[in-house]
Amino acid sequence: MTTAGFLVALIAIFLAAKLCGELAKRIGQPAVLGELVGGVIVGVSGLQLVDPHDVTIHLLAELGVILLLFLIGLETDLKRLLSVGGSATAVAIVGVALPFVGGAVFGHLLGFRFMVSVFLGASLTATSVGITARVLSDLGHLHDDESQVILGAAVVDDIIGLVILTILSTLAEGGKLNFLGIGRILLIAFGFVFLAILVGSYLAPHLIRLIERIDIARGLLFASIIFAFALAYVAIRIGSAVIIGSFAAGLVLARTKKGKQIEREVHDVAQFFIPIFFVVVGAAIDLKTVNPFNPAARQFLWIGLGLTVIGIIGKVLAGFVVLRRGLSRVVVGVGMVPRGEVGLIFAQVGLTTQILSTGLYSAVALMVMITTFVTPPVLRRVLEARTPDNLHGEADYVMDAPLDSK
Amino acid sequence: MTTAGFLVALIAIFLAAKLCGELAKRIGQPAVLGELVGGVIVGVSGLQLVDPHDVTIHLLAELGVILLLFLIGLETDLKRLLSVGGSATAVAIVGVALPFVGGAVFGHLLGFRFMVSVFLGASLTATSVGITARVLSDLGHLHDDESQVILGAAVVDDIIGLVILTILSTLAEGGKLNFLGIGRILLIAFGFVFLAILVGSYLAPHLIRLIERIDIARGLLFASIIFAFALAYVAIRIGSAVIIGSFAAGLVLARTKKGKQIEREVHDVAQFFIPIFFVVVGAAIDLKTVNPFNPAARQFLWIGLGLTVIGIIGKVLAGFVVLRRGLSRVVVGVGMVPRGEVGLIFAQVGLTTQILSTGLYSAVALMVMITTFVTPPVLRRVLEARTPDNLHGEADYVMDAPLDSK
Repeated sequence: MTTAGFLVALIAIFLAAKLCGELAKRIGQPAVLGELVGGVIVGVSGLQLVDPHDVTIHLLAELGVILLLFLIGLETDLKRLLSVGGSATAVAIVGVALPFVGGAVFGHLLGFRFMVSVFLGASLTATSVGITARVLSDLGHLHDDESQVILGAAVVDDIIGLVILTILSTLAEGGKLNFLGIGRILLIAFGFVFLAILVGSYLAPHLIRLIERIDIARGLLFASIIFAFALAYVAIRIGSAVIIGSFAAGLVLARTKKGKQIEREVHDVAQFFIPIFFVVVGAAIDLKTVNPFNPAARQFLWIGLGLTVIGIIGKVLAGFVVLRRGLSRVVVGVGMVPRGEVGLIFAQVGLTTQILSTGLYSAVALMVMITTFVTPPVLRRVLEARTPDNLHGEADYVMDAPLDSK
Repeated sequence: MTTAGFLVALIAIFLAAKLCGELAKRIGQPAVLGELVGGVIVGVSGLQLVDPHDVTIHLLAELGVILLLFLIGLETDLKRLLSVGGSATAVAIVGVALPFVGGAVFGHLLGFRFMVSVFLGASLTATSVGITARVLSDLGHLHDDESQVILGAAVVDDIIGLVILTILSTLAEGGKLNFLGIGRILLIAFGFVFLAILVGSYLAPHLIRLIERIDIARGLLFASIIFAFALAYVAIRIGSAVIIGSFAAGLVLARTKKGKQIEREVHDVAQFFIPIFFVVVGAAIDLKTVNPFNPAARQFLWIGLGLTVIGIIGKVLAGFVVLRRGLSRVVVGVGMVPRGEVGLIFAQVGLTTQILSTGLYSAVALMVMITTFVTPPVLRRVLEARTPDNLHGEADYVMDAPLDSK
């Protein structure tokens, strides 16, 4: 890519994000919905000004989601998150199991071979913590009790999703896996989060003291970002997800005495990168593959709609296993619905390993699209429709710095 | 590049920039000198963690220098800049002519053929406005009268340098050029700046009013950045330099009623990208090519030192044609010395068009290195050594937001 092409892509991204984001807010929707639609407009289905497969654009989008989860981590109270740990884990496990089994059975009934059916099921498992967190943040509900459950469950979901992806990729490439192998993958994935928080919590205060003593210009901001990038890097290397690493970094730094200041400074930098991520997710969506006027595409349209129904029912039902009383189970269930970029990654792996045909790839992509675009407005509605006795001390928690604040 | 490799590069860049930048300040030098040295440490001559030729790293560095010049433009008073326009133009022309002729004669005396000699002369002409502006900013002297002359002359220099580069590239590729062609290139290059400022000054207030009326979240920041990127894009397309475009955008927006606010908000984002640029400039320097213990490299070492002497004398002498009385001519001359990334671009073009051998490329690179690294400490000294009657109302101008502020 040339500098000129890069500037055009950035201009298109920022124009799409800001104009469509504002339009979405004007009609009462979260800004992130507008950013996704803006991405569709400037992406492969529209003006083609933003190429989501270009390596630089892809890496900047990655930086966006890394900083988003870092910021969400900084705004999250680890103690409160752990206090809903039981509910979150239950929601995550049921929310993975139901869509997985449903999707696999659906594929089997349609006559696909075993691996294809399993892959269809697997593509329904993940939750896009990025999109859910942005919607909650846009609507000012990031600190509700339900949001803590959703956030915790989405993180567990992401880890389980990675484990499934690792297992399927190994099988798809003809490798063998025994229970010991699966156990090791699980241990690494979950072990990383615990170790990151444990070791991080021990190191962070020393880091802060060091920064204070040597007094580098903007040292706190850069030390925090380096800390987040380092944990994100370790997460990748160890076989976990990059955003789990930066989220853990945020959780750890939030507990230091400089937590609020770090959040403020990171926010100023992150606001530049976060819209890039959402516009690029939208830009990757290819509407052509689900064109209802194309007879060849029509059967996959129906398969996609079937997957969508299974995916939505599975996740919403998962919300009903919330253990804690007094929480709105519908809010939790709806919050788990969006697949976003995580679903697209599954579909992409299925396509490149040739397990999914281009038709089935499009069917999965349709499911990703619908779950992603339907969630923001529906989540807003169910949040507002909660009965008063289900509301929990929202007044105690003021959004410190909404992602689209002025 | 993978996400993991990208994170490692960013971590290396920020660690190098912040630690070496701080170290430089501790020993009384501008932070930018530390960032350049830090770049050498993590770049091709050192740990090789940062690959300056990787397309993503290169584009982020470009973004850094675009935002730097945008910020410098925002901090510059167009009226004051124009008031020293005569001096700046005189300094620029002499500062291009003396090193050009000196370098070409030097090459001729050493027995090189015509095109090689001309290229050696040309590589001595440009001034790195980025490095000079950062040094002046780091030292808190960006608003001195001398700095206005340096800034104006460096911009004119950059344009002349581009014209020379266009002419040489055309000749090197076997193309023909007549005076009409050269005139057209000159007209486009200078015409762009005038038009950008003229049209921009007319459009900017309308843009600001529009932003205020539709009231988009962070609209002012994103509208300003889009404006700067758009002018930078037009500058490239029209055959001018990308940084001339963003500098012009800064000059224009500085004159609107929201100038100060834009400067503050752009500063928060730019501080993330600017260190990337300077570390990458340092990372591109290959110390191996000027190893004095390698007999094959030694003759080019001498040629490089010869070019350095000619380059420094030519620019310092140019300072003495300053028309306005009461200014420190030595400060202006020294401020024009660093070649930085502009010199490296010349050397790169010479190498790829096979006009410069690898040995001569290294000689030019050595000249670039020395002029770049020598200027920050020397400029600091001559700034401090100005006789009191040469000082001009510094107290009136307070740095609004030094680039390395806390």
